[in-house]
This record gives sequence, C-alpha cells and structure tokens, in this order.
Amino acid sequence: MNRYELITRNLQEVIGRDELKSLIKSKKKISLYWGTMPTGSPHFAYFLPLLKIRDFLKAKVNVKILIADLHAALNGIPWEILEKRQAYYEALFPEMLKALGVSTKQLEFVKGSKLQLNPKYFEDVLKMSMQATTKDTTKAASEVVKITETPKLGNLVYPIMQALDEEHLKVDIQFGGLDQRKILVFAREFLPKINYKPRIELMNPMMSGLTGEKMSASVPSSKIDILDDEETVARKVKKADFPPKDTNCGIMQWLKYIIFPILDKKSLKIERDKKFGGNLSIKSYDELEDIVKTGKVHPLDIKIAVAREINNLLSKVQSPKLTKLHKAAYLV
Amino acid sequence: MNRYELITRNLQEVIGRDELKSLIKSKKKISLYWGTMPTGSPHFAYFLPLLKIRDFLKAKVNVKILIADLHAALNGIPWEILEKRQAYYEALFPEMLKALGVSTKQLEFVKGSKLQLNPKYFEDVLKMSMQATTKDTTKAASEVVKITETPKLGNLVYPIMQALDEEHLKVDIQFGGLDQRKILVFAREFLPKINYKPRIELMNPMMSGLTGEKMSASVPSSKIDILDDEETVARKVKKADFPPKDTNCGIMQWLKYIIFPILDKKSLKIERDKKFGGNLSIKSYDELEDIVKTGKVHPLDIKIAVAREINNLLSKVQSPKLTKLHKAAYLV
Repeated sequence: MNRYELITRNLQEVIGRDELKSLIKSKKKISLYWGTMPTGSPHFAYFLPLLKIRDFLKAKVNVKILIADLHAALNGIPWEILEKRQAYYEALFPEMLKALGVSTKQLEFVKGSKLQLNPKYFEDVLKMSMQATTKDTTKAASEVVKITETPKLGNLVYPIMQALDEEHLKVDIQFGGLDQRKILVFAREFLPKINYKPRIELMNPMMSGLTGEKMSASVPSSKIDILDDEETVARKVKKADFPPKDTNCGIMQWLKYIIFPILDKKSLKIERDKKFGGNLSIKSYDELEDIVKTGKVHPLDIKIAVAREINNLLSKVQSPKLTKLHKAAYLV
Repeated sequence: MNRYELITRNLQEVIGRDELKSLIKSKKKISLYWGTMPTGSPHFAYFLPLLKIRDFLKAKVNVKILIADLHAALNGIPWEILEKRQAYYEALFPEMLKALGVSTKQLEFVKGSKLQLNPKYFEDVLKMSMQATTKDTTKAASEVVKITETPKLGNLVYPIMQALDEEHLKVDIQFGGLDQRKILVFAREFLPKINYKPRIELMNPMMSGLTGEKMSASVPSSKIDILDDEETVARKVKKADFPPKDTNCGIMQWLKYIIFPILDKKSLKIERDKKFGGNLSIKSYDELEDIVKTGKVHPLDIKIAVAREINNLLSKVQSPKLTKLHKAAYLV
C-alpha cells in the first residue's frame, strides 16, 4: 500500500486530495494534527481516530495530538476542572496508543493552552474575528459546540481557534471526525483571509453507539468507557441493539472499524456450543458480514466475542493510575 | 472645590458614587483611564475629555490614556494602517494636553496592543467570552462599534476587551463619553463574573456638532479637525447652525463645555462695530447665555469670537510634524 493509500484509507472525506498528492510527491516532511477536547470521559470509539493515527505514522507522517483544553472551556467545561480533565487525557492517550502497538515516541502531544496563550496567536484570533461574522462562526461551530438558546461569545471563538491551530502547529493536514466538517471547511475558507495557507482536511467516518445513536457521554449505555470493567463491558454489549441480519448496527460498525483492524491478520473467534454449529474463526470483516447476512450466526454469540475483544484491549490500557486520574477529573 | 467635586463636575453620569466617595476617604492612590481608538482624525470635541482629564489631575488622580489600537481594528480599521493611526494619536494628544496647560509628565500613555497581547489577557478574554452571550455583547457594543447587517465576531469581542482593560490597567475608574454607557455597564456586570472587582464609571456629556448632529468624521462640516487651518475653521464656524436665541446649538455647547473652561477666568471678547453696540467682554458662559436669550447679540458676532478662540487653541497644537503624521495616517 503506498503512502497516499495508507493516509486516506477508510476515511469518509478528504478535502485537498490534489494538495495531498503533490505533498507526497514533493517528498517533504508531512505533518498532521488531531485535536481532542478534554471534556467527557473517552470511550471505546476513541480507538477509531487512534487507529487512523497508526496509519499516518506508518505512512511516515509526523503526528501531533492536540489536547485542546481551551476548546473544552469554550465548549462549556468549567475552568476549574480543565486541568484535571487535561491530566486524564494526557495520561490516557499514550496508553491507548500503546495498546494499538504505537510507540508514543513517534508522536508529539501538545497542550492547547500552551500553544494558544501567546501574543501572536491572540492577535490572529482578533484578525480572523474581523473576517468571520457571527453567522459564519455559528454555522461552523454548530455540530461540535454545545450551544444553548443564545450562544456564548466563546462558543463562536471555538472554530476560529481550531482553524488557527493548523497554522500555529505548523502542520500540513488536520484530521478529525466527520462531525468536524463544518469547522474544517471554515478553516479552509478563513485561514487564507488572514494570509495563511489552507490545509488539507481529512475526515474519519462517525460510528454508531451501542444503542443506535452516535455514542454520547450523556447516554451511558450507548458507549463503553475506557475504564469500564469486564462485567460492565459484557453487560453493555449484551444489551446493545443487534437485530438479526443487521450489518449496520453499532456492534457491526465497531467490528468493522475497530476490532478487525486491531486483530489485523488474526481471526475473530466466535465460540458456540457444538449443537449450534461449534466455534467459528472469521478472518475478515467481509467474511463476518456475509455470515451475518445469512442469519446463520446468532447476534448474542457475536456479542460475546466482541465483549471479549473489547475487554482484551481495555485490559492493556487500564491501570490504577488512570483510575485515580479519572476520579479526580470526573467524580467531583 | 474638594476632590470629589473636582472629579465629578460637569459629568453626565457617575456609576459608583459611593465607591468613589469611599475611595477618596481611604486616601489610597486613585487611578483612572480614558481610552481612545485611533480611528478617525481627532476633532475639536476631543478637547472635552482632555479638559476633564485636567480636572482629574488637579484632583491628584493618576491618569492613564489608552490608545486602543486593537479596539480600532475591532471597529473595522484595517490592520495595515493601525500603526500609522496610532502614531498620529500618540503624537497629537500630548500636544493637545499641553495646549490646555497639562504637562504630559503627569500622566501615562499606554498602547492597547502592548497591554492586551499577552497570555493572561487572552485567557481573560476567553473566560469572559464564556460568560457573555452574543446578545449581551451586541447590546454593549451597539452605540460604539460600527456593526453592519451581521456583526463580525470581533465587533462583539470589543466590549469584552474594554471591560478587561479596567482590570489589566489596574485602575479604579474608567472615564468615557456617554456613548460608552452600555459598554461601561457591561464592564460593571461582567468583571465580577470572572472574579474581578467592578470599577467606577464616569461619563462625560456628548456635544453636538456644528451642524446639529453629533460630530462625525463622515460629516466634515459638523466638526473641526485639530489640523484645520484658520480659514477652514472660520468658514466652518460661520456656516454652523445657530438660530437666534438658541442656547442649545453646537456653538453654544462648545462655548459652554470647551471654550469657557479653557478661558478659565479670562473673558470672552466679542468684537462689534460701535454702531451695533461695540465690543463685549463676557466673563462666563452663564452671562453669555443670558445675552443670547435676549437676542441682543448677533450669532455671527459670537461665531467670529468662537472661530478666533478655536484658532488660538489649535495654533498651540499644530505643527509640521503632526501634519506629516496625519498625512501618513489618513491620506493613503
């Protein structure tokens, strides 16, 4: 697989394909950032962008992970607890990456406030804020920032700062989930208005939660927290929506986008009593999809395998240290 | 006249009268700032706040004059010409103050961007922007910031920064024109929301222009530029609205608020031909008002005296250096 394929595989959308091709052709160092706000407690779906980061690293892309504390504040996290959320995220992501076989020495972690609280950055915020109307920024922020009736002014500063991060992190590419689309498009449009070059924008697909909708911190049963214990994982997965033959449910998406990529070349083992057909060893997601479509495997058997794989992965991440940091950050 | 009277005389409004009284009683150093945006070319009415600054200095108040370049940018002045506007304002105000007998050694000039472009200030902008909605800031900015159909986001950052200037300049009092009222009230309300103390707000009355409305850079005949030559001053004053017996026109306001205070104890001389009653020597604005009400003096004779006094004052300010800086700032 060539660099271009490695960088773009499984993405939902690429803005600036030709720019990316030229960049690869130029043989210059390529750098990319992924930003994450230290808001809610990260859940299983966070492995999705990290798997993609593994691809970027394989493609010899310099990766920066921005833990965007100020963005969390602009999205409503009270200033007093930012530090603790930040501390948890900073400790957690390296462990999640290690569990995926990624050495954290290969990438750089950047704390948002450290990057952003400087005179030049602030000046750029003001400059861009004279280019963008409240309408532009409201639209850009709409899918990411929690905005009540009347937005707080800071909610609308959010997309401006995300755009400027591309410039101030000195990267060629921003990577994010498809929910970031409006902000990434905003960045493409508004960076050039203050004489900075527009960046390439890469977007990951969004995954469904266990109970249908997008995973959400406010619907605990829809997501599996990285620190959930074995039993909780088994219970949540067991309760998940999985209509027979439905290859589009959350569980199947998790298998497709996270579990099979993590298994890599290994097979997924589905254990069944002999009277129900005995164990299955499934080599690829496509193979599983075909079987599910026939209805020849019971969703519960798949769920049990999924819970086992999730627990296997989480056990590599969890630690007393993380539990302690999590408590400090969330159980206030 | 005691300190409280000196500080508050001729003001239109004082927010925090009791706080001001306690502050004076405490015998602590009192500090105050007046901010001015380097936007349009300053005109004669700018002597009004400077006269008030003279009062503050007489009352042993530490005065800071903020030349708020970033605020000018947030009000639509293109970034490229900010420096030149700033340079003109910085050179002009000391000369205007000297013409009023104020030594500039008694006060401190502060450049907005120098005060504001720092990490702590930016952090405070973000903090306050999470307290204030777009509605709050739109309302606060409405009388000062030029807002077209949809505001630029920067237009709404403006009042936040004006509020924060009170804290970051470490002053007890902000002084401004009555047009600043909504921003000053906003500052009172929002500084405490990020744990800063509210400041005392002092407001000067607004003066009418020569042609009735508020003086405006966009209506050249309504105002006299500080660099207008003698002939231009005479022509503009001659053309000014001054209905017989009207003691409320722009000319009378200028006499009341600027010319008589500058004359101090000296009389205003109105020259007339003997056949029209001969010269008049008027000791106070009140005396003039009484005469005007009777209609016994022709507006034109008053105008001639006013033009002479204005030219007399402006001649103390004008210089080739200022002309050069003005050209660089405005004739681009």
